[in-house]
Amino acid sequence: MPALPPPLLYADTERSADALYFGKVDVPDPFIAFGHSGKKYAIVSALEFGRVRRTSDFDVVLPLEDFHRRARERWPDRRPGPAEVIFLAAGDVRRTSFTVPDDFPSGVYARLVELGLRLTIAPGPLFPEREIKSTRETAAIREGNRCSALGFAAAERILRGARIKGRRLVYRDQTVTSEMLKFAIESACLEAGAVSANTIVAGGDQACDPHDRGTGPIRPNEMVIVDIFPRVTATGFYGDMTRTFLRGRASDAQRALYTAVRDAQLAAIRGIRSGANGRDVHRRCVEVFESRGFRTEHGKRGSVGFFHGTGHGLGLAVHEAPRMSGSIDYTLRAGSVVTVEPGLYYPGLGGCRVEDVVQVTSGAPKPLSSYHYEWEFRS
Amino acid sequence: MPALPPPLLYADTERSADALYFGKVDVPDPFIAFGHSGKKYAIVSALEFGRVRRTSDFDVVLPLEDFHRRARERWPDRRPGPAEVIFLAAGDVRRTSFTVPDDFPSGVYARLVELGLRLTIAPGPLFPEREIKSTRETAAIREGNRCSALGFAAAERILRGARIKGRRLVYRDQTVTSEMLKFAIESACLEAGAVSANTIVAGGDQACDPHDRGTGPIRPNEMVIVDIFPRVTATGFYGDMTRTFLRGRASDAQRALYTAVRDAQLAAIRGIRSGANGRDVHRRCVEVFESRGFRTEHGKRGSVGFFHGTGHGLGLAVHEAPRMSGSIDYTLRAGSVVTVEPGLYYPGLGGCRVEDVVQVTSGAPKPLSSYHYEWEFRS
Repeated sequence: MPALPPPLLYADTERSADALYFGKVDVPDPFIAFGHSGKKYAIVSALEFGRVRRTSDFDVVLPLEDFHRRARERWPDRRPGPAEVIFLAAGDVRRTSFTVPDDFPSGVYARLVELGLRLTIAPGPLFPEREIKSTRETAAIREGNRCSALGFAAAERILRGARIKGRRLVYRDQTVTSEMLKFAIESACLEAGAVSANTIVAGGDQACDPHDRGTGPIRPNEMVIVDIFPRVTATGFYGDMTRTFLRGRASDAQRALYTAVRDAQLAAIRGIRSGANGRDVHRRCVEVFESRGFRTEHGKRGSVGFFHGTGHGLGLAVHEAPRMSGSIDYTLRAGSVVTVEPGLYYPGLGGCRVEDVVQVTSGAPKPLSSYHYEWEFRS
Repeated sequence: MPALPPPLLYADTERSADALYFGKVDVPDPFIAFGHSGKKYAIVSALEFGRVRRTSDFDVVLPLEDFHRRARERWPDRRPGPAEVIFLAAGDVRRTSFTVPDDFPSGVYARLVELGLRLTIAPGPLFPEREIKSTRETAAIREGNRCSALGFAAAERILRGARIKGRRLVYRDQTVTSEMLKFAIESACLEAGAVSANTIVAGGDQACDPHDRGTGPIRPNEMVIVDIFPRVTATGFYGDMTRTFLRGRASDAQRALYTAVRDAQLAAIRGIRSGANGRDVHRRCVEVFESRGFRTEHGKRGSVGFFHGTGHGLGLAVHEAPRMSGSIDYTLRAGSVVTVEPGLYYPGLGGCRVEDVVQVTSGAPKPLSSYHYEWEFRS
């Protein structure tokens, strides 16, 4: 297979993990970055210039304003945009082709093609090497999960400290709500140097919509899904863990649900090794659920049972390669880092998900997350 | 001008303000949304289905899994992606053309064109009406700025409470750092229901790189730029305010710098009204700075003086239309909401920026942000 041309990016590093991976510097607004002759180029505005020059992986940092001036001279009738700047910069180094990621903006893509650059859209990830994590990157993910665990501890402290008053939980004279728990969790993450946006604390039937973030009072004797995926500010890497808690007394049905989910997780982890197919790992969860009579059904009003993938890669993005799901063949490779997060969701009974993170090896996967699995807090 | 075809989006609502604006619901993973015959369609996975059906502005919500099954039947040799799903869904309603935003992902764009859909890339914003803010949207921005102001109060409390010990500031036996102030600010925002990521607290020469977020000890008698742009979780709208503080005693040069920046801001605000050109508003700041001898220069090692725009639109994105800068003609319209944020940056002397938010009217602009302008905290 012939090598692809070097990469071209136009993105900010908040939205594009590829841009952060390539330049190793935060840039909050979209900027131009590309490879040429083994060197990394960036074109940035005066707002970023000094900082990117000093602290990034870029070998050549060029001032955007110079290109804007040249673009206005060359195309006096149009406002210069990133495409014109890229075209001029490519001309300066006599380059006519690049590979762009599949999320490269269409507006810039179409204009560059019109100007005559040859662009290949990467058939998979732009930097496939991002999937395999170095020791430093693995440590950064572990740190993200340490922040998740601090979040669980904060939530557990409130749930255990709460008194049951009828259908409410009361902690320090306040009704325990999703919002209260999220604030405790997100503060704990912030203090540890991570931002946990979109934390999920969803109890009862809310938890049956896996992406419902949860609102309002947490009820006694109901399962509460707590999913914490903080981004460590210093590195940009994510943690991603989920626990299901219950304050009060679980029913036999809830216990059977929890045990099935945790057993499915363990079965999946036993199937994870380099060379294994992510689809087969997922199948292990499905088998545990089916053998215990937990059915998955898709109805007009939504789905019940187990209706998401078993896991996804984790790194500078919270969802990245590889995938472990029923619909995709994906061969796991040593060094990949994946979540393992089976779940079951039945309105009326509740939702339950347990999620940890492991690194794929040729043998048993290496755990990169740690928090206990007690979940029924009777007092 | 003929009307453009209806919009087509493939994005998550964290990254795409257009997607959030269109459907009025958070969806954390990229999903398909489009308009047809005056109705809004969404295609989402089982993870989102129930929630999007119940809580969004979408008139029709379709299950992604059904389309994946059909796509696998129709194209047995390829893994179905969003383009195949969009193509099938468009066929179902007999639609052959869409308008896509300029940040629509190239991979999906190129495949859809190959499949035969006619796509127009929006020549400007996909939803130009996003620029004009309703009463409800204006209130949401005001709420974002209330969170910014809580952040300033938290930072000011620490700076005023700190003792000067040589080249350090000491607060409750700890050295005051950018990190300490950012934690106080971000906690205050979190408690108020907003996430302030990437908060800038940059002192001394760090502040001269306007996008340096700041690290390490804050020094006495040095200007500290504090730029807080929190996103209110409940609405998705941003606040964006900046203040410059100094703990200790300012020099005459620092006072002249501060006064010039604040006067430039006031001059700009006086120039803001519907029909005014953003370039002329920017020019007012430049004139204040030039008349007082503050020069702007672009050198090989970076820029000094005033080298960014005067302001930008604010809403569901932290940077959106309109723009007020020296390089762009942009006519302001009543109902737009813009930041007004001149700044001056001179290594050795320091950086200073003051930023507020106003809504454009036919008369004096309406302030949407409020915090005092005291900045020299002697004790």
